[in-house]
Amino acid sequence: MPLITTEAQLAEFSLAPGFRASSTACGLKKSGSRDLLMLWADEPCAAAGVFTTNRVQAAPVLVDRDALASAAGRIRGVVANSGCANAVTGERGMTDAMRMQAVAAAAVQAKPEEMLVLSTGVIGVFLDMDKLKRGIATLHGGGTAASSTHADAARAICTTDTRAKVASATVALSGGRVTIAGFAKGAGMIHPNMATMLGVITTDAAISPEALDRALRAAVSESFNRISVDGDMSTNDTVLVLASGLVGCVAADEAAFTAALAAVCKDLARQIARDGEGATRLVELRITGAASEPQAHRVGDSIACSPLVKTAIHGNDPNWGRILAAAGYSGAEIDPARVRLWFGDADDVQLLDRGLPVAFDAARASALLQNDPCVIHLDLGLGEASATVWTCDFSAEYVRINADYTT
Amino acid sequence: MPLITTEAQLAEFSLAPGFRASSTACGLKKSGSRDLLMLWADEPCAAAGVFTTNRVQAAPVLVDRDALASAAGRIRGVVANSGCANAVTGERGMTDAMRMQAVAAAAVQAKPEEMLVLSTGVIGVFLDMDKLKRGIATLHGGGTAASSTHADAARAICTTDTRAKVASATVALSGGRVTIAGFAKGAGMIHPNMATMLGVITTDAAISPEALDRALRAAVSESFNRISVDGDMSTNDTVLVLASGLVGCVAADEAAFTAALAAVCKDLARQIARDGEGATRLVELRITGAASEPQAHRVGDSIACSPLVKTAIHGNDPNWGRILAAAGYSGAEIDPARVRLWFGDADDVQLLDRGLPVAFDAARASALLQNDPCVIHLDLGLGEASATVWTCDFSAEYVRINADYTT
Repeated sequence: MPLITTEAQLAEFSLAPGFRASSTACGLKKSGSRDLLMLWADEPCAAAGVFTTNRVQAAPVLVDRDALASAAGRIRGVVANSGCANAVTGERGMTDAMRMQAVAAAAVQAKPEEMLVLSTGVIGVFLDMDKLKRGIATLHGGGTAASSTHADAARAICTTDTRAKVASATVALSGGRVTIAGFAKGAGMIHPNMATMLGVITTDAAISPEALDRALRAAVSESFNRISVDGDMSTNDTVLVLASGLVGCVAADEAAFTAALAAVCKDLARQIARDGEGATRLVELRITGAASEPQAHRVGDSIACSPLVKTAIHGNDPNWGRILAAAGYSGAEIDPARVRLWFGDADDVQLLDRGLPVAFDAARASALLQNDPCVIHLDLGLGEASATVWTCDFSAEYVRINADYTT
Repeated sequence: MPLITTEAQLAEFSLAPGFRASSTACGLKKSGSRDLLMLWADEPCAAAGVFTTNRVQAAPVLVDRDALASAAGRIRGVVANSGCANAVTGERGMTDAMRMQAVAAAAVQAKPEEMLVLSTGVIGVFLDMDKLKRGIATLHGGGTAASSTHADAARAICTTDTRAKVASATVALSGGRVTIAGFAKGAGMIHPNMATMLGVITTDAAISPEALDRALRAAVSESFNRISVDGDMSTNDTVLVLASGLVGCVAADEAAFTAALAAVCKDLARQIARDGEGATRLVELRITGAASEPQAHRVGDSIACSPLVKTAIHGNDPNWGRILAAAGYSGAEIDPARVRLWFGDADDVQLLDRGLPVAFDAARASALLQNDPCVIHLDLGLGEASATVWTCDFSAEYVRINADYTT
């Protein structure tokens, strides 16, 4: 599974059959970069979404929840902007998000509730509706400023991302070979245990909204909900999946479809963690021997959020005591006398054996921390459950990026 | 209340009447800095302690819990080392901590269980017992290498601290004027909701171990448990208080004594947050209008741990959306439509009014973030409960300090 999307992969990227896309720069980003996109199908789609569990939810999150509740079987598309999150904007923010939805829906002859809305960028700023409406007008009509490549759509959703993130998979089901293809954005304000950041995934499978919802929740639980960049949960996190229904998908294939969807979600999630603000490598935390999977996840999450662990990895410093300390304060069940710890994809160097420090080759341990991905394996010695969590190292560049974002 | 201990204050610092101290450099720190101290009374003391809630607990924490359980009314003193945490060291670590306790106890003709032990430094490294025993031998006998000033004892407990931290107070009780004086250390691996870092407080009050324990728990809950540097909870966190009993303290004065103890604890806790690794200022988060005090604490804790909030403050960037996002994912009850937010000690600039962004003077807001302490006031609009939490800004220097600590 790749850690980044190369330019060559991006150039070849295509959404699932049945979907079109258009994107432009409508002026929301001061940089003049691409900041608006729409993707849509000509026929109604089944759709499902998972959203942030933050108590402070952005207007587009509230709008999408309503739309899916009323029209999950006949969604036509998604309109998305970067450069402004439309979060903590009160009633005016809700009105703006609904206008954005209605204008985009009208462009494809759909009803407002058949269009989903995504926004990402600075919190507490109102959308510039004039720029947005002018931008949407160029998207579907094919204004000269708009691009119809799916790669450009993936680029238009990005903010502090250093690169666009796309992923796709095909899976042979009884009704035919189904494609699952999507893109995501996110580099800061990324934290597990939620429906994280922005992701849009398309498929040509014929599937009911209910089955699609089940598949998405299962896929997200082991992908987007298993990554952390900085422990900060966003107000806008959303992952949407739209199914155009061109290829038959029978109920008996749900497990195979879910597995393929999970692979695409995991691919995108790992790319997000790898592209974490200021990150120089992906960190894969394998927690095994836990009493239960939620306990394993909790331990991995705690380590993934520890600034001390993440700075040590950045410095190639095998200061493993910080990993133990983070496991210890996770709230999960831990018996220090049973814990074992290794660095490396093949458990190459052992640092701790049943609670006791192991004499290890510091140079070799340090070299393993420099791998991308850098793999850390913690066995709790309590049971059979496991979970893998992805994060990134923590660099001074993270501070530089975030100390001066709005000003 | 001062944010730092000046050199002049340190030179004048004295423990409470009845206590002596001695410190030296025994060689545990490669730098050759002071790394060993003992403080003791000639008569048995009442003592109480609060300890880390991390599931991984260092050997000295386990030893002290036992000692307080068996001899809380006749503790003679404390022996402490920096440069090695004696944590995640298994049975050998326990044996080493008990030897350290016994050697120090013998030096003052006490039983082992009448001496408390503190260790701080790198996790997963065994204590060098030869150096430690040679060092302790010089402490009480008054070897030429040892210093008997209380300021040097406060210095000997430090690790990445940029300065020693002392605080004292006196309070008039019915039995006479009582002194409370102590020191603390801590700059990294600091997080609320525990008995945090290392602190040793002495008093000449005559008080039972039970009353002292109550007073300490009450004092810690609004001081050491209200600070965070990096969200990382240590394996060694301990605060001890010893009472020599020279001045009468009747039960009726417990509230006054507790208030004075809380003032000393708060003074030390603020100094720790201000001296957070890489910090350039103290950040005071005033959470009001909460449904309950635990909810207010939870919101403040969540904001105090947000790398995005802390980097924004470091960059003097009034990017207040990050504060709202952190409050939103705290798990506490939040109604976005009731929230109000101000910067400044006197609510100088309002940024949010009942959920809606307020047009504000960005230059003035930015200037307020540069204050030391920098004050942020979030009113949840839900009830009457409040809590104040202290943290620090997050700089690239934090990463530099922590990316290369053991190597």
